[in-house]
Amino acid sequence: METILLKNGLILTQNKNREILKGDILIEGNKIKEVGKEINEKADEIFECNDKLIFPGLINAHTHVAMSLFRGYGEGLPLHKWLTKKIWPAERRLTKEAVYWGSMLGMLEMIKSGTTCFNDMYLVGIKEMGEAAKKLGIRGFISEGLFNGVEEKSVEEHIKKGIRSIKEIKELKSELVKPIVSCHSVYSSSEELIRKAKELADKEGLLFHMHASETRKEVFDLMKSKGKRVYEYLQEIGAFDRNTLLAHGAWVSKREILLAKRYGPTIAHCPISSLKLATGGIGPVAEYLQEGVNVTLGTDGPASNNSLNMMETMKMTALLQKHKYWNPTIIKEQDIWDMATLNSAGFFGIESGSIETEKNADIVIADRKNANLVPMHDPRSVIYNINAGNIRNVIINGEWVLKNGEFKKVIPTEVVEKTEEFSKKITENTDGT
Amino acid sequence: METILLKNGLILTQNKNREILKGDILIEGNKIKEVGKEINEKADEIFECNDKLIFPGLINAHTHVAMSLFRGYGEGLPLHKWLTKKIWPAERRLTKEAVYWGSMLGMLEMIKSGTTCFNDMYLVGIKEMGEAAKKLGIRGFISEGLFNGVEEKSVEEHIKKGIRSIKEIKELKSELVKPIVSCHSVYSSSEELIRKAKELADKEGLLFHMHASETRKEVFDLMKSKGKRVYEYLQEIGAFDRNTLLAHGAWVSKREILLAKRYGPTIAHCPISSLKLATGGIGPVAEYLQEGVNVTLGTDGPASNNSLNMMETMKMTALLQKHKYWNPTIIKEQDIWDMATLNSAGFFGIESGSIETEKNADIVIADRKNANLVPMHDPRSVIYNINAGNIRNVIINGEWVLKNGEFKKVIPTEVVEKTEEFSKKITENTDGT
Repeated sequence: METILLKNGLILTQNKNREILKGDILIEGNKIKEVGKEINEKADEIFECNDKLIFPGLINAHTHVAMSLFRGYGEGLPLHKWLTKKIWPAERRLTKEAVYWGSMLGMLEMIKSGTTCFNDMYLVGIKEMGEAAKKLGIRGFISEGLFNGVEEKSVEEHIKKGIRSIKEIKELKSELVKPIVSCHSVYSSSEELIRKAKELADKEGLLFHMHASETRKEVFDLMKSKGKRVYEYLQEIGAFDRNTLLAHGAWVSKREILLAKRYGPTIAHCPISSLKLATGGIGPVAEYLQEGVNVTLGTDGPASNNSLNMMETMKMTALLQKHKYWNPTIIKEQDIWDMATLNSAGFFGIESGSIETEKNADIVIADRKNANLVPMHDPRSVIYNINAGNIRNVIINGEWVLKNGEFKKVIPTEVVEKTEEFSKKITENTDGT
Repeated sequence: METILLKNGLILTQNKNREILKGDILIEGNKIKEVGKEINEKADEIFECNDKLIFPGLINAHTHVAMSLFRGYGEGLPLHKWLTKKIWPAERRLTKEAVYWGSMLGMLEMIKSGTTCFNDMYLVGIKEMGEAAKKLGIRGFISEGLFNGVEEKSVEEHIKKGIRSIKEIKELKSELVKPIVSCHSVYSSSEELIRKAKELADKEGLLFHMHASETRKEVFDLMKSKGKRVYEYLQEIGAFDRNTLLAHGAWVSKREILLAKRYGPTIAHCPISSLKLATGGIGPVAEYLQEGVNVTLGTDGPASNNSLNMMETMKMTALLQKHKYWNPTIIKEQDIWDMATLNSAGFFGIESGSIETEKNADIVIADRKNANLVPMHDPRSVIYNINAGNIRNVIINGEWVLKNGEFKKVIPTEVVEKTEEFSKKITENTDGT
C-alpha cells in the first residue's frame, strides 16, 4: 500500500486526550498508521509540514450542496417571493446534469475550506450527486428528501423513491459515498410518510435525517394541528432515536432538550442559514451540550448561507452561543472542534474525526505562517481567524484531493464553466423579476 | 506618471448610481483616470481581469491592529481574568518594536482580506504603527487612545501625549498615514479629558474617535454617575458632532439614534467583537440607517475577533440585522457595501470608497472563478461567500501592494517571525495560568 509521511506538523489530534503535538503522521493506504513526535519509517512520499497546522477533516452534517446553482439568486427578495418567483421555478427546471455539476462545484468549495465529509438531502439527481462525490474523492452521505405534503397521499410512491435512491447510491460501490434516508420535515410530510421513511431506514440499517424545529411557524403550526411540540411528535411517531439526525433544532423548549437527552437523536446546528432566513431562533447549543446531547455542525445549502464553509460555521457557532447567553465562556473552542469532527463521525459511524492510529486518513493541512494565523498561542482558537485561503492541502481516505493548492481529481475550470452554464439555463427568464 | 490598465473586469463601482459594469479601469499615478466599457489608451502595464471581480478597497473604521500580538492569548478565560492575568500584564511589557511588527502583521492580514484603509487607536508605539503603515503602503488613521480614569487627573499631561502623537504621525510626511484624535471611552476618561481632547481635534482640524455604548454596564454606570445616556452626555460635553466617530454604538435608545441623526456623528459598527465579548448588544444598524445616520464597519482589535477580516464583518453585519429584526429584507447587500466603503471614506474625508474618475486608486481584485464565488448572479451578494483566499491582488494609492498573491513592499516571512518573537517575549511567564 502507498504510504505518505507528514513530517513536523503542528497536529490538533482530536484524540481521546485532545492532544496537540508537534510531530509526524504516517498514512498507509486509506488509514493513519501512526502518529508521533518522530516517525523514522520509510514512506513513498514525505511531505514537509513544519509551517503547517494539521487537523482532522471537518464534517458538514447538513447541506444541500447542489443549491450552489442558486447561490445569490434573487438575493434580497422577501422569502415568499424568493421561493415562488425564483427558487421553485428554477428547481422545476433542474436536470440531473445540472445537479451533477452544481454538486461538484459545491464539493470543491467544501474541500478548499477543510471539509472532507458531508451529509446531503436533495430532491433530484441523487445518483449524479453521488457520482460527483465519488469522482472527487470526498466522503458523502446522500439522500433524496422525501415529502408529500401534510395530508396523507402517495406515501408508498414516495417510499419507492427513497428505496430507489438508496439503490442508486449503493450501486456506485464507493467506499466513500453512502446512502442515508431523509424525510424533509414535519410541515412538508405526512405522519405516515415520516413513519414509513424511518421504518425504511431501520430496515436497511441506515441513518435517518430530517429538518426539525427550524422556524417558530413550524413549531406553532404543529402545536395547532397535533397539539405537540416537534420533538414530542417525532418521538411519538418513532422518528427520534440514536439513528436520527435533526437539522436545526433551534426552536425547542427545555423539555424537548431533555427528550433529546433521553432518546438520543443528534442535532445538526446550522446557525448561518437561520440568521440569513431570519428565523429568529439561535439553537441552544450550550444547553444541548450541558445535557450531553450530541451536536454537530452544518452549513445548510448555499442558497441560504451563501457559502459551504464549515470554518465560518465554527466561528459563528462560538460567537452566537456567547452572545445568546451573555457569557463569553459558555462554550469552549474544544467543544466547537468536537462538534465539527468527532460528534459527526460518531453519528455517521465513520472512523474519521480524529488523527489517531487506525482512523481514516481524512486530514486538512493549513498554512500556519499566514499573517492571519500568527501568533498561534493555542491552535484550538484558530476557529476565530482561519479562512479558506489558509488551506492548500487536503487528504481524504489517504488520497490527496487538494495538493499545493491544486485539485487533483478534476479540472476546476471545467466544473466552474459547467456550473455557470447550467445555473444560467435554469434561472434565466423565470418570471423576469 | 505610471499608468496601469485593468482590462475586462467585472466592476462593482460604488459610483453614484451604484453601477456594476464589465470593463476597464485606467489608473494614472495614484488616481483613477477613467472607468469604462472599453478603454483603448496605452498604459505602462496592462493587467487582464477577465476572471476578476473588482471592488473599492474596504475601510476598517475601528481597530487596534497591534493587538495581533495577543491574538488567541488566554482564549476561553472569563473576561476579568483574561484582562488582569493575561492582556494587561502583557501590554505592560509592550515595546515600540513589538508594536511595529505586530501592526505590520495585522496590516498584511487586512490587505489580504481586501482592506486598504484603517482607523486605529492604541496605547503605545503610535509612531511605529505609522511607520509600518507607511512602509507597507496602506492608508491609515492612527492615534493614541487617551484615558485618565473617570476622576479628573493629569488632563494636561494626557493632552500633551495626544499632541505629541499627532506630531509624530505628521512628521512621517506620508500621503497615506494621517493622525486622528482618540479618547478611549466615557468609562475610562474624565469629562474634562474628553472635552479637551475634542477641543484639540477641532483646533488641529482633525477627526475625533471614541468607544461609545459598547456595553450595558457602561451605559448604566453612566446613568448612575451622570444621570445621562452615553450619547446625551457626549452631546452635552461637546463631543458629538459630524467630526466624531463612535465605535460600537450598540447599547443605545431610540432617542439616542435620533440624537445622532440631529448632530451627525458617525458610528463604527463592530459586531464580531461584541458577540465574542458577549456584550449582549447587537448595534441597531437598520434603525440608524433608516434615520440617515452614517454607519461604517470595523473589525475591532484581533484580540477580540480574532481576525482583521472586513469581509467577515460585512457578512456578519447583514446576518445579524436580519436576525435582530426577524426580517430577511431589513438590510440590503448594497447597504453593506456602502458601510464598508463610501460611508467611511466620507467620514474620513478621503477620495476613496468608489471606482470613479479622480478617486484614489484603492482597488481590490478578487478571483471570481473560484468555486465559492460561482455562480455570481449579482456581485453585491458576494458579501455572503467571498473569503480572503479569493484575493490575490490589491492596489493602494495606485501602487501594487499585493500582486499575484505576493506582497510587494515587505517580506511576509520576516514580519511573521518578528511578530512571533515579540509576541512570545511579552506573553510568556505572565503569571503561569
